[in-house]
Amino acid sequence: MTTYLITGGSGFVAYHFLERLVSRGAPCRIHALDKDDPFLAVASTPAVTIEYRRFDLLQKERLVDTVREIRPDYVLNLASFSSVAASWRSPDESFQNNTGIFLHLLEAVRSADAPCRILSIGSSEEYGDVDAVDLPLTEAAPLRPTSPYAVSRVSQELLSKLYVDALGLDIILTRSFNHFGPHQRDNFVLASFASQIVRQRRAGGDVVLDTGDIGVIRDFIDVRDVVSAYLLLFEKGRKGDVYNVCSGTGHSLEEVIGILARLAGTAVRTRQNPELVRPRENRVVIGSNAKLRHATGWRQTISLEQGLEDLLQYWESR
Amino acid sequence: MTTYLITGGSGFVAYHFLERLVSRGAPCRIHALDKDDPFLAVASTPAVTIEYRRFDLLQKERLVDTVREIRPDYVLNLASFSSVAASWRSPDESFQNNTGIFLHLLEAVRSADAPCRILSIGSSEEYGDVDAVDLPLTEAAPLRPTSPYAVSRVSQELLSKLYVDALGLDIILTRSFNHFGPHQRDNFVLASFASQIVRQRRAGGDVVLDTGDIGVIRDFIDVRDVVSAYLLLFEKGRKGDVYNVCSGTGHSLEEVIGILARLAGTAVRTRQNPELVRPRENRVVIGSNAKLRHATGWRQTISLEQGLEDLLQYWESR
Repeated sequence: MTTYLITGGSGFVAYHFLERLVSRGAPCRIHALDKDDPFLAVASTPAVTIEYRRFDLLQKERLVDTVREIRPDYVLNLASFSSVAASWRSPDESFQNNTGIFLHLLEAVRSADAPCRILSIGSSEEYGDVDAVDLPLTEAAPLRPTSPYAVSRVSQELLSKLYVDALGLDIILTRSFNHFGPHQRDNFVLASFASQIVRQRRAGGDVVLDTGDIGVIRDFIDVRDVVSAYLLLFEKGRKGDVYNVCSGTGHSLEEVIGILARLAGTAVRTRQNPELVRPRENRVVIGSNAKLRHATGWRQTISLEQGLEDLLQYWESR
Repeated sequence: MTTYLITGGSGFVAYHFLERLVSRGAPCRIHALDKDDPFLAVASTPAVTIEYRRFDLLQKERLVDTVREIRPDYVLNLASFSSVAASWRSPDESFQNNTGIFLHLLEAVRSADAPCRILSIGSSEEYGDVDAVDLPLTEAAPLRPTSPYAVSRVSQELLSKLYVDALGLDIILTRSFNHFGPHQRDNFVLASFASQIVRQRRAGGDVVLDTGDIGVIRDFIDVRDVVSAYLLLFEKGRKGDVYNVCSGTGHSLEEVIGILARLAGTAVRTRQNPELVRPRENRVVIGSNAKLRHATGWRQTISLEQGLEDLLQYWESR
């Protein structure tokens, strides 16, 4: 039976990935490793069994044993310290928990001699300092990382390529753009906006959002379209290749706030919080998803508007 | 008084750097940190005081305290797990002891708020998969690392650039090519050849060298010219810039063996040891030192032949 090993298995993206496997219904077994208990566990079904394990991925030996025991067909590495801001506060922790953990995973697969397909999740942050002529960013655009987090992801890619070329591991890579959706924690920007709107509207009075620089343009994609891409890449991705996972369109945070306000039926003002303004922020980050589409047949199915509506509904239901 | 902090302070390159400071005679204070005791300690003089300390650079807090206490003007980061082969056996250890330690050092300088100039030592291995059209390699040549060690050095560069651009640290970077000289351990290729020749000649009989692939061409440079470059870069290097440290000429290992045989006055045969042949070895690696020369006035002063003669003499004196 098809077996999945998912690191960061209790997180936001893992939740949606597991939901998708359950709703697809094809028989499989899933081992979800995470340092934390799941904030929302997905229940097993007769076809799809899900086992959550508390796991410290820095424990190398235990990871080797686990890979040897599970013998996964697919490994999805979602474990990550994905905060850019936190990576500036503690660069070595960011490195250890991104590149370091990823290396442990590759070494575990290598030393357990467990042939499997690994999906290495990277980030649009790897593009870093974006030159306008490179927009929309294809996978060939230069990588000019501007945070320790971004450097840790570039290192992860460089290592992946080594393990493919020199050791023959079967790794596929993504650079995933800003994803959002139900269950994302509200230290991420769209979740923050949606939760602030819902909370303040409930409290009555004006809605005033605490924001960073709302002029920046980003490529937002609903997490459910992201997990579709990951499943398709497992099936159809080419070993050693990198794929952008993105919508292909850009929207300013100001536009997004406008859509949220309309959907919520409320006026929204904004107040810039200097602490939320990042020192070296790209103005525009938009990716091209042409390679992903051509390789896998993936299509975006959830519009930004639909995604934002679902996001508001999620925060209202809490 | 000018104060130096040197990591990997008990090693081969540090030995020659300290010797150079002592022979130069300009008053200064040197703190040499290393996980090991010095294999050959350089003695203090009235002008130049040298203090060796056993130090685990993975101990972050202690490093911050030490930087705060020493308040160095110059930091030379020689601490490294520089074996490419070992980096394949233990990639995470290589990463931890190269990129990880370097990050700790940068963080220590940052959090001790100790303005100083840092020399980040990188490697020609960063160029990795060299395209013949890029020879001799300038600093603009693409980096295509082919070992975990090389990736760890590329990561170190990417991090250095961040710390310069975003945090204003004063870091200069090198990509240092194959250096050799007295006191280098004989797991490095030229030290291995010289020590084998001296040992076998003493034992009488034929000299038969155990070698890897002796057809590869490398840019060899005497360590004493390397430490001259490091001193000049401290004085004249440009913040944020990368400099090749190399001779600018290439020689095959076969040629080098020929020179050693002539200098030693003995016939030398070779026997290829499959364990010493690396799986993905570049045929030709030669650097351009034009940038270093123009920026600092550095010149190579020790020819390959002179360097090899001194190397043989060193092994004969042991």
